[in-house]
Amino acid sequence: MKLHPIWNDYPQLQPELTQTMKLMENSIELKNKAVKAALLEMIGAGGKLLRPAYQLLFSQFGPERNRQKAIALAAAIEMLHTATLIHDDIVDDATLRRNLPTVSAEFDNNTAVYAGDYLFVACFKLMSNYTGSLRSLQSNAISMEKILSGELGQMEDHYNLSISVDDYLSNISGKTAELFALSCSVGAFESGTSQLFAKNVSNIGHNIGMAFQIIDDILDYTQAQTETGKPVLNDIRQGVYTLPLIYALQTDPRQLTSLLEKKEQMTENDIQKVYQLINKLGGVTKAQNLANFYTKQALKKIENLPDNAENTKTTLQQLTRTLLTRTN
Amino acid sequence: MKLHPIWNDYPQLQPELTQTMKLMENSIELKNKAVKAALLEMIGAGGKLLRPAYQLLFSQFGPERNRQKAIALAAAIEMLHTATLIHDDIVDDATLRRNLPTVSAEFDNNTAVYAGDYLFVACFKLMSNYTGSLRSLQSNAISMEKILSGELGQMEDHYNLSISVDDYLSNISGKTAELFALSCSVGAFESGTSQLFAKNVSNIGHNIGMAFQIIDDILDYTQAQTETGKPVLNDIRQGVYTLPLIYALQTDPRQLTSLLEKKEQMTENDIQKVYQLINKLGGVTKAQNLANFYTKQALKKIENLPDNAENTKTTLQQLTRTLLTRTN
Repeated sequence: MKLHPIWNDYPQLQPELTQTMKLMENSIELKNKAVKAALLEMIGAGGKLLRPAYQLLFSQFGPERNRQKAIALAAAIEMLHTATLIHDDIVDDATLRRNLPTVSAEFDNNTAVYAGDYLFVACFKLMSNYTGSLRSLQSNAISMEKILSGELGQMEDHYNLSISVDDYLSNISGKTAELFALSCSVGAFESGTSQLFAKNVSNIGHNIGMAFQIIDDILDYTQAQTETGKPVLNDIRQGVYTLPLIYALQTDPRQLTSLLEKKEQMTENDIQKVYQLINKLGGVTKAQNLANFYTKQALKKIENLPDNAENTKTTLQQLTRTLLTRTN
Repeated sequence: MKLHPIWNDYPQLQPELTQTMKLMENSIELKNKAVKAALLEMIGAGGKLLRPAYQLLFSQFGPERNRQKAIALAAAIEMLHTATLIHDDIVDDATLRRNLPTVSAEFDNNTAVYAGDYLFVACFKLMSNYTGSLRSLQSNAISMEKILSGELGQMEDHYNLSISVDDYLSNISGKTAELFALSCSVGAFESGTSQLFAKNVSNIGHNIGMAFQIIDDILDYTQAQTETGKPVLNDIRQGVYTLPLIYALQTDPRQLTSLLEKKEQMTENDIQKVYQLINKLGGVTKAQNLANFYTKQALKKIENLPDNAENTKTTLQQLTRTLLTRTN
């Protein structure tokens, strides 16, 4: 079990993030040894733990200083995230995640279905044990519903050559931004901040999540497989069209459409052509501009946060800048 | 939308069961039209609604008479049940459920993964909106964890020719009995009964669930496909060995083992031979005896329940007898 190197620059966050990982591991109580091992391996493989980190940081703004509770809720959020990743990997037929075989590839889809379900429930259990109020749980539930609705929305748009920027934004808003928003706002609210403050914080999380996902989608077109640990451009074959491609299609659909219409029959060569067209038609640049817009929004709102003893604001600025200007 | 004919004899339960179905339908808020339609179709196809029925009945024992809350929690439990069915159908590669194509067969496994996830979350949302206390939610979460653990346990025992009766009972205890126990105890506790009373009621639910699942497994060996709406003996090919087969294996494993070792290559003829051997070796009779034991336990405990204005005890006796002596 080792923290992701992103945290080398944040020694103050390391102890609680390590405790979050440990708690996740200790929450897996399964007699099925194979699935238990797969889940522990996935947790131990060192996801970035971004959502827990934001949650822990925002929990420094309220008067309540119950760190055990903050860590438990951070673990719950990351377990929810891990559950959705395991199920996403079934749907995307993905074989690699964090440079390890996915649960669906190492075992089979059946194991992955139940393993993800188990994490959903384990998350629900941690949340109901540590959340301070039913009201908080209700807003968690509403967020979780939006996340699933986003996943299903994205699936409905598979192979949709006329998908609009708004459709895309609506899908990633549910699929990704909502969980960042939830992490940030749960962190704040459960530490005893006002609802108004938590709502503002939720908005910060939303902007971070939007920028994060757009950058993730840009990197699919600018990075080699080894660097992100995900098969490059597999999405295109499966009909998942993200922002750089959508912008390129809007600029000039002719050549792209005839390539994309081959669907799963697209060759490596076709994919390379799509890749070049997207860059040539300015898709990547336009997507980067939109990511920058969300990043600026987030940083502006962070700038307006109150100062505190932990100097959380500075850490939030540093982390958010690093994350949203990453090139790998 | 039509109630299952099992309720023709219980006119007093019909209005609330109908409201439960309506609330389930209204809780599906999805923009993905295909998945929404699939979920509505599955709900409307008329499952037996046994768990909501027990929940509603046991909610007549406490002082609190908030029927809207009782109905909401009944809908939540049935949505949880439906979620597990959709995911089970992926794992079992099932094509028919309630004489309709399964979600995984009508759409694909991907849709079924997210559709089940969505129902989990929608259930969580209803529960957190209507449960009276965090404590109650915590015990729900623990039950849900046991259910998943049971599913995963059953999967680990696939093709296990030396599976014991205890292994089987432990798996169905999680997979089926726990949800009956939860339905009954949530019904009682949320209507304001004592924790002790709810615990006793949970035990009644456990016994009903154990008998129910054993009878379900017996019917796989004694019924034709058309009557249960499930492909007969598909389970055996996939390595799911249930009580009648386990008893038969204990009596004389020789012939059975050589047939079962063919796994997915078993022919229709092999399956027929297994069927005959199980009956000849007394597997069905022994399983029936164990089902009767659990049924008697449940009825004995129901007999000891207090009387109330609704005469709930009599209804519980009638329903439980009908259910646990069914032959189709």
